[in-house]
Amino acid sequence: MEVARLWLGGRGLGTYLALRERLFEVDPLSPENLLVVAPGPLTGTGAPASARYSMTSRSPLTGTLFDGNSGGSFGDALRRLGWDYLIVSGALDEPGYVTLGMVGADDASPAGPAAGFHSAGDLWGRDVPSTLARLRELYPRSEAAVIGPAGERGVLFASIVNNRGRSIGRGGLGAVMGAKRLKALVLGHGDRRPPVADPERLEFIVYEAEKLLKANPITSTALPEFGTAVLVNVLDRAGALPTRNHRETRFEGAAAISGEALKRDHLRRRSACRGCMIGCARRTAVGDQTGEGPEYETIWAFGAQCGVSDLAAVVRANYACNRAGLDTITMGSTIACAMELTELGLLPDGPRFGDARAIVELVAATAAGEGLGAELGLGSARLAALHGRPDLSMSVKRLEMPAYDPRGMKAQGLAYATSNRGGCHLRANMLGPEILGVPKMVDRFATLGKAGLLINLQNLNAVLDSLSVCKFTAFAMKEDYYARQLGAVWGETVEPQELLSLGERIWNAERLFNLAAGFTRDDDTLPPRLLHEPVADGPSAGQVVDLPPMLDEYYISRGWDEAGVPTAVKLERLGLLTVAAAAGVPPGRRQARGADADAP
Amino acid sequence: MEVARLWLGGRGLGTYLALRERLFEVDPLSPENLLVVAPGPLTGTGAPASARYSMTSRSPLTGTLFDGNSGGSFGDALRRLGWDYLIVSGALDEPGYVTLGMVGADDASPAGPAAGFHSAGDLWGRDVPSTLARLRELYPRSEAAVIGPAGERGVLFASIVNNRGRSIGRGGLGAVMGAKRLKALVLGHGDRRPPVADPERLEFIVYEAEKLLKANPITSTALPEFGTAVLVNVLDRAGALPTRNHRETRFEGAAAISGEALKRDHLRRRSACRGCMIGCARRTAVGDQTGEGPEYETIWAFGAQCGVSDLAAVVRANYACNRAGLDTITMGSTIACAMELTELGLLPDGPRFGDARAIVELVAATAAGEGLGAELGLGSARLAALHGRPDLSMSVKRLEMPAYDPRGMKAQGLAYATSNRGGCHLRANMLGPEILGVPKMVDRFATLGKAGLLINLQNLNAVLDSLSVCKFTAFAMKEDYYARQLGAVWGETVEPQELLSLGERIWNAERLFNLAAGFTRDDDTLPPRLLHEPVADGPSAGQVVDLPPMLDEYYISRGWDEAGVPTAVKLERLGLLTVAAAAGVPPGRRQARGADADAP
Repeated sequence: MEVARLWLGGRGLGTYLALRERLFEVDPLSPENLLVVAPGPLTGTGAPASARYSMTSRSPLTGTLFDGNSGGSFGDALRRLGWDYLIVSGALDEPGYVTLGMVGADDASPAGPAAGFHSAGDLWGRDVPSTLARLRELYPRSEAAVIGPAGERGVLFASIVNNRGRSIGRGGLGAVMGAKRLKALVLGHGDRRPPVADPERLEFIVYEAEKLLKANPITSTALPEFGTAVLVNVLDRAGALPTRNHRETRFEGAAAISGEALKRDHLRRRSACRGCMIGCARRTAVGDQTGEGPEYETIWAFGAQCGVSDLAAVVRANYACNRAGLDTITMGSTIACAMELTELGLLPDGPRFGDARAIVELVAATAAGEGLGAELGLGSARLAALHGRPDLSMSVKRLEMPAYDPRGMKAQGLAYATSNRGGCHLRANMLGPEILGVPKMVDRFATLGKAGLLINLQNLNAVLDSLSVCKFTAFAMKEDYYARQLGAVWGETVEPQELLSLGERIWNAERLFNLAAGFTRDDDTLPPRLLHEPVADGPSAGQVVDLPPMLDEYYISRGWDEAGVPTAVKLERLGLLTVAAAAGVPPGRRQARGADADAP
Repeated sequence: MEVARLWLGGRGLGTYLALRERLFEVDPLSPENLLVVAPGPLTGTGAPASARYSMTSRSPLTGTLFDGNSGGSFGDALRRLGWDYLIVSGALDEPGYVTLGMVGADDASPAGPAAGFHSAGDLWGRDVPSTLARLRELYPRSEAAVIGPAGERGVLFASIVNNRGRSIGRGGLGAVMGAKRLKALVLGHGDRRPPVADPERLEFIVYEAEKLLKANPITSTALPEFGTAVLVNVLDRAGALPTRNHRETRFEGAAAISGEALKRDHLRRRSACRGCMIGCARRTAVGDQTGEGPEYETIWAFGAQCGVSDLAAVVRANYACNRAGLDTITMGSTIACAMELTELGLLPDGPRFGDARAIVELVAATAAGEGLGAELGLGSARLAALHGRPDLSMSVKRLEMPAYDPRGMKAQGLAYATSNRGGCHLRANMLGPEILGVPKMVDRFATLGKAGLLINLQNLNAVLDSLSVCKFTAFAMKEDYYARQLGAVWGETVEPQELLSLGERIWNAERLFNLAAGFTRDDDTLPPRLLHEPVADGPSAGQVVDLPPMLDEYYISRGWDEAGVPTAVKLERLGLLTVAAAAGVPPGRRQARGADADAP
């Protein structure tokens, strides 16, 4: 409880352990790197959309602290075994997998603490679906998290996939698992219930929360009915749909790859993570293939970003990523980067914008490490640098940005630049305030005045990833519901403000990790294209991102100095002075204005 | 339409006319001052909670531009006569009243344009209820806005009251009417319908909006069931209930004057403005008196702020204000100021904290201009200055702050300091984000990071006051509903962002007015007590407001220079360069960082 009170679980716990074990000093692909696997205190308790868990490590793609958060049913399974977290350390000598919580080598109940080490045998080299299927044959009631060929081969954006086709997608944690020669983590079937101090109180809060989820138009209709793909047309109309490696912000083929087209031509049925009443996931089909997704960001990555308007090809590319265990955003955007390099004559025989066949073939080539695929497997930042044009990688801290062009929604640029795991929309997405008007509409072209809102979202998401519950619930639920749920689980009163302070604390701890790893203000930036190339036409015509004043405002509002280092006052207020000292990060300098203002 | 497109109506239109007529140069109590009476484009169209109108003038209390916004049914009546606004100019030689929209001297239909000037006769000197009642006898189908004895006598915080007991409360516009010797504006009964270009579209949007109002817990339950008085206990528990002239932030008598106690002992029934489905108003009784209210701010002003825990006395003081036509916040807080002066020995024979009889008697004395009442009628800023302690007035720009102590919710302090009509919670109330978690919970003790959110609220409220609809609808409705309603009325498409930009434009225009009237950054401040006297105990113990960095952040986010003057870039972007030039306000200086960042 002492640790839980400060770090909650999930992402927060991973941050704590990554700092304690000094992962900022290790090579991400060495045996010294760790993989922390952790559900949160709400996981499996019946709290809405709480079937989630985090994996935390140092990313081989970005070098930053990196946690991924996934749904499905793996997090629940961990808690049914009575465990709050696992740490995967070291490496196997030969490819293998690990079973946990099984008595003996199968899943005979009751579950025991035994960890079994098994040779991977013919599982090594298998794709994701067949690995998961084979493990279910071997261990019928098990839940597994596995890597595909991409992770085995060390593709820097390989994912980890668990049952129900949900992934720890970004940052290449699949390559960390691959470097440990670990094909799978297999959990036996436990029968414990996660501890809840006051079950009746929790039940009542959940009942209330579910009413809100049912009443909210986004969680009751938009997400279940249309999934995330509904955003293609929305972002295109706003002039914020990055197109052809961010050269444009509207895509003439948007209608052809829209959520509406996906529903018409490919949707088979909805699906959901365990116990989730939102159910945003999709089962789709193309030709004789069926599979999960694609999500909005995937449609964008292989569609608009590559200039491809052939939705069937996009769906096939998505399936190919799911099979190989590859992050779709980085894969698509890296192909787009290769396309631009090709068109500039820098990549002989490379793919060209709009080539629908190329996107499917290049996913396979990347998973196999063949031909151009070997270079693509490094991600766009290394690919673009190899060919002399590092500026053409549409990434931040080497993580490819997703499907929202900051020139059409300025604070999204600040969100990318300050995200502590790189170009990512899951630390905080300004889609709500800048495009959808949730919780409040703000001027999407304004440069200043949005840092505070962004910070609040970042802190809240740090809480949600640590509890761990799905961020989509926050469309309908306010902070006090999470605090009350946690209060019922702990048998205490938890104030919403207190919970948000823990989110701020986790965010600052993550910042300390990255500072210890050598990141500076210079890394809090965007590709030069977004800073200097005005959008040519459409609703965002003439716009670029004026980042320096936004960063200044953000640092002031965070209580960081001009170099982006938390001041002593801020560290003290958050109880992080010893953490900073242990990581060897000196506090930021006092500022003439702003950063010390939080001192009472 | 040319004016409406830039200024909407209501408060925006009042701002436009006040600038055009250079009211920043006039003495507020001279015949040269104007009173602009204006409903908005949504008033009376069937849009939810739209039975509102604004009066705009230069305030005799603050010297700033000042608009008040009132519900009831007077705004509807104006629109039924087919009028978008009235300007009251000059002054009568003898006390009188004006009838408008009547054929002849009575209200025989159909309504005509005739304005009738009438001697006030025995109406002069009457209190508010009997004036309204007498006018209804004379003109049975009329609607009236009247002043009471306080307005006649020039009390600097006299209100204007219309039928259904709703008021233009703050800023002393009743004294402006009194200085014009105008007892009442009486409107005949018109039969026109406000123009709506696309009634079917509007009807559908209203249908959708009403569903949201019915689903939202605040608009469907909290406000109708409990009214605003429910906040007494909420603010007390947060340590943000100003007590005994802001010497403390918790009140030991909070339970005795709470909304719960009001409901138990005094509530008779709910009431509502015309056509409003929220219905937050209350009909109450004490002894043999019945009346409207008291609202939360009134309970606080006569209760906690004066150290009075006798709820019956608070209700009586409230009724006395309603009869005399007095603003309850300023009245209560001015008495509290007198109480502190008395306890310090600066006001011989003055009232003491906790004296329940004094609060009722002093309201009557103020309305009558008798004894200490004559000084109280000047408001607390002038009273405290008269007795050598200007720091003891709990006001900003001479307007008394309402019932939220900024030491327990820091951005509320910024809201008061930057409010362009003085210490007021209706330009933007941080109660939502800082206490209730609506739309998002923020750290109430944090100094920085909240300016952007505040600005957004200020801009939105400028829109709502100009449309003109009740701010309470914004608990349930998003910006796009207002934009769509206005779009249906105009027969066009109005983007939510566009509408918020108009709000920003109005806010900046109001700033220009105040700059032209001589206000500077030094006026954007708080009473020294809030800046330098830490709260002694309770949840806000040790807190003060560190205002300078908050103002810096606010000015940067507003695109103003360090002196609080909009820069040329900002003025150009808002189309206000000529307005600024006409008012003789040179644009702000360029800033090293921040303020010019909005230039594309």
